[in-house]
Amino acid sequence: MVLDNFKSVISKYDVIFFDAFGVLKTYNGLIPGIENTFAYLRERGKDFYVVTNDASRSPEQLAQSYVNLGIEDVTPDRIISSGMLAREYLDLKVRKGTVAYLGTENSAHYIETSDLKTLSIRQLDLNNVGDINALVFLDDEGFDWNTDLTKTLNLLRKRNIPVIVANTDKTYPASKSRVSFAIGALAKMIENTIGREFIRFGKPDPQMFIFAYQHIKNYPNVSKQDILMVGDTLNTDILGGNKFGLDTALVLTGNTQAEDAEVRIRATGIIPTYICVSAVVE
Amino acid sequence: MVLDNFKSVISKYDVIFFDAFGVLKTYNGLIPGIENTFAYLRERGKDFYVVTNDASRSPEQLAQSYVNLGIEDVTPDRIISSGMLAREYLDLKVRKGTVAYLGTENSAHYIETSDLKTLSIRQLDLNNVGDINALVFLDDEGFDWNTDLTKTLNLLRKRNIPVIVANTDKTYPASKSRVSFAIGALAKMIENTIGREFIRFGKPDPQMFIFAYQHIKNYPNVSKQDILMVGDTLNTDILGGNKFGLDTALVLTGNTQAEDAEVRIRATGIIPTYICVSAVVE
Amino acid sequence: MVLDNFKSVISKYDVIFFDAFGVLKTYNGLIPGIENTFAYLRERGKDFYVVTNDASRSPEQLAQSYVNLGIEDVTPDRIISSGMLAREYLDLKVRKGTVAYLGTENSAHYIETSDLKTLSIRQLDLNNVGDINALVFLDDEGFDWNTDLTKTLNLLRKRNIPVIVANTDKTYPASKSRVSFAIGALAKMIENTIGREFIRFGKPDPQMFIFAYQHIKNYPNVSKQDILMVGDTLNTDILGGNKFGLDTALVLTGNTQAEDAEVRIRATGIIPTYICVSAVVE
Amino acid sequence: MVLDNFKSVISKYDVIFFDAFGVLKTYNGLIPGIENTFAYLRERGKDFYVVTNDASRSPEQLAQSYVNLGIEDVTPDRIISSGMLAREYLDLKVRKGTVAYLGTENSAHYIETSDLKTLSIRQLDLNNVGDINALVFLDDEGFDWNTDLTKTLNLLRKRNIPVIVANTDKTYPASKSRVSFAIGALAKMIENTIGREFIRFGKPDPQMFIFAYQHIKNYPNVSKQDILMVGDTLNTDILGGNKFGLDTALVLTGNTQAEDAEVRIRATGIIPTYICVSAVVE
Repeated sequence: MVLDNFKSVISKYDVIFFDAFGVLKTYNGLIPGIENTFAYLRERGKDFYVVTNDASRSPEQLAQSYVNLGIEDVTPDRIISSGMLAREYLDLKVRKGTVAYLGTENSAHYIETSDLKTLSIRQLDLNNVGDINALVFLDDEGFDWNTDLTKTLNLLRKRNIPVIVANTDKTYPASKSRVSFAIGALAKMIENTIGREFIRFGKPDPQMFIFAYQHIKNYPNVSKQDILMVGDTLNTDILGGNKFGLDTALVLTGNTQAEDAEVRIRATGIIPTYICVSAVVE
Repeated sequence: MVLDNFKSVISKYDVIFFDAFGVLKTYNGLIPGIENTFAYLRERGKDFYVVTNDASRSPEQLAQSYVNLGIEDVTPDRIISSGMLAREYLDLKVRKGTVAYLGTENSAHYIETSDLKTLSIRQLDLNNVGDINALVFLDDEGFDWNTDLTKTLNLLRKRNIPVIVANTDKTYPASKSRVSFAIGALAKMIENTIGREFIRFGKPDPQMFIFAYQHIKNYPNVSKQDILMVGDTLNTDILGGNKFGLDTALVLTGNTQAEDAEVRIRATGIIPTYICVSAVVE
Repeated sequence: MVLDNFKSVISKYDVIFFDAFGVLKTYNGLIPGIENTFAYLRERGKDFYVVTNDASRSPEQLAQSYVNLGIEDVTPDRIISSGMLAREYLDLKVRKGTVAYLGTENSAHYIETSDLKTLSIRQLDLNNVGDINALVFLDDEGFDWNTDLTKTLNLLRKRNIPVIVANTDKTYPASKSRVSFAIGALAKMIENTIGREFIRFGKPDPQMFIFAYQHIKNYPNVSKQDILMVGDTLNTDILGGNKFGLDTALVLTGNTQAEDAEVRIRATGIIPTYICVSAVVE
Repeated sequence: MVLDNFKSVISKYDVIFFDAFGVLKTYNGLIPGIENTFAYLRERGKDFYVVTNDASRSPEQLAQSYVNLGIEDVTPDRIISSGMLAREYLDLKVRKGTVAYLGTENSAHYIETSDLKTLSIRQLDLNNVGDINALVFLDDEGFDWNTDLTKTLNLLRKRNIPVIVANTDKTYPASKSRVSFAIGALAKMIENTIGREFIRFGKPDPQMFIFAYQHIKNYPNVSKQDILMVGDTLNTDILGGNKFGLDTALVLTGNTQAEDAEVRIRATGIIPTYICVSAVVE
């Protein structure tokens, strides 16, 4: 496996899309040295965005988490989350009534509007579901799995409403050697059981990349050939980036380990344009 | 849809296999009149068995639940449960060490032997899993879904051990209008996430029917053509019975409603030999 | 089921996206009266596009097929096909070498460029595949299924290259009572067998809708709320339109029959904004 | 990876089940030295059976193929094929009328009875299908894929009949570096397209193992613990053997290469009791 130098790679592109987890940070903080990458981007005037499957917080809160780690570059306008797509969907397609949600109260604030109320699955009364016009899976925390997943299933048996999954990931790293279930896995269990089609937002779905593309500064005056997607996961970051027509760089600091990379590329047929040790500019 | 008379149908067979839920009983007791069916079977000397996807209790305890409802005919030797297959598997293939399980303590007693200890996922310490030689999904109760499903996932990341799903059902009826998740749905979520093959016992798998067949009194002197499988669910009872070579009767007192039966038979291609209103002999 | 009047429905939108098969035409010609719909659109100055899962011909050839049926309104610039997405992908991501294809020679002309040669799977020599840089599934005709599907499988065992499926449909209507396999079904068989991820273009994928959206005359000065997607198939036209944020109208002249519509909407959870008898303005 | 000595392994068992392809023979003849294994079994009086996913020929014809290669030990009574299960199913569940089939005429002879006619899909007239009571997938040869797979799909749209897949394999080796599609892959494509449940016979399904078990000489006086399943494929031979309660030996002369064995065992969670270089007794 020939490894590419990350600095040489990004020097060829005008705009960089970064995945967050496993690329910029991990369960216990920033990837060491990643501040150099932001300095390089600043210096060269390159545009960049963080494209993340996350609906647990608003872009402002996600940006603040970088500030807390000492990175000022990741401002809210540079964050594209799958939660933003869920919100756009509700704006366009649901508009009024109440949206039931699985997640924390904090995750729900972002999708609330003057016309659209939100109601935690915890508070939902199954005998009173006539005004529930949509259901959104936002976060794996904020509810009791034993009682509230069952409540969700019974809600859907009573109401044929749009169901939005605002983060399709199945797991996330919780510590060096442990993972946790993400909301995408819980949503999939309910989708398989009820047998209906849920609306899923998040990489590798092209809608995530379209949304990011439309948010870049010089849009639409940037060709897809001038954008690089950087990620640690073949079947979200790399598959999605490739399909959207972007060049892609796989980094080995997250889900794909150096010793597995070649085997997995061969097994999946998902081929990154480049493979780099990390997203750190040295 | 032409409906067949249940009494005429069973009169043609020597041995009857019954599904339990939706055929003999529901969430709130026996199917009204089902005692007539047992009286008829007794009178005519017909052999019968209850073939059920259930690993929450031993055959003795399952039989007692019929006694509690006033039915003395369903003795422990007439009960064939998917839990019995799980136990046989452990006897044959695991033999020693510790089996971790998801379920109540009660569900675990049945699989315990002098050589094989059991340990609830609740008690399991992820830092001490070296002697865990198998994992069994028994029941949806007896553990905390938020913490213990995640613990299960991490156990499997540490240990490549056989995983047995002792009940493949995804849901069970909890009341007139509500369903609950069965352990099969939770197991499927973890199987999809970890990407490994679990060993699943329960209808429609033929091993369930083989096991029942080998338990009948006059085995092996009964032809498959003299056995009828009676069930309420097309894709477990009827599919499994058909595939094993048995004639099958669909009853409309459980999962398959009268108004949907024809549509679902056409959609699934799972064709029962007979369709009857219920398993009640009138 | 309350049916909506198609004329009233489209009067509320500035831009209409039409599926082709089952909406504008069928296996044996135009939907009777559909010329009135085009007259209405012309008269009111409404913009419209035909959004079709078809990679068998170029937009020019597809437009000509409407001219042959007496409709002059469907000019090449009004046609958005999944084949156009396949071509864009090759332009952006493959660029040079040879693309092997399954389909007719005619289907391949459209993806050929000065830098990118095409080679029919018929002509491909498995001992000489070093310069094959991509594989595209274009059409179910133009090759021998017995020998060439097997050749395709062996090509992919030799070369880990991007595989593009330019039409995800599984079947298409061949006559009043017969269907034929579309190339999407053949591609799926090979994808399942080889176990790799193919790149699929076509509804319900959002990339198809963004491509159409970017081609409309007043883009980007048209809101998604002013666009209506009209289709006959819940899990392509309606699911895809909904997810992209468009209002959707299901018509009953194609894949979804009047007697099944309600059952299928309930079963799939794919809910159109409107249901109309047909796309004919009366 | 610690390799076990095949002779030591089989010395511990009374009955050996062998997979055929990749274990006893390959595309171009016997595994070199396999005659020693048969000599050893003969000498020690061990019982053995060939358990194969093959419905292309009768047990007599399959046995003859070993005679042609110089092996006299594999008599017809020692062969258990998935085709035998298909035949039993038809005997028990279809009984009369006509069975349409995909395969060679030779493959059909074996399922023909005095009451049950067979008709090749080639000869089938879609306007005259009223007496077709079942459809069987037997072999990938003997019909034209372009026209006859489509004919099969349309037959199933007209008739809701049992569909039997008598070999679930997706591919088979055709030469040192090439594979061919087996009938299981074609059947799966049609099953996915029509959306119905087909009845599938073959490893890893337990019905295959119970059928073999019931055919052994001292049945039922042989414990499952005295039987060893030897195979080259994790998700058919090893998974099925394990689930049925048998000990299993993976050999590295077929589908699973020495360099991949450990990775695939870890990835699939399918764990053989032993791993041996080959099934040759040295």
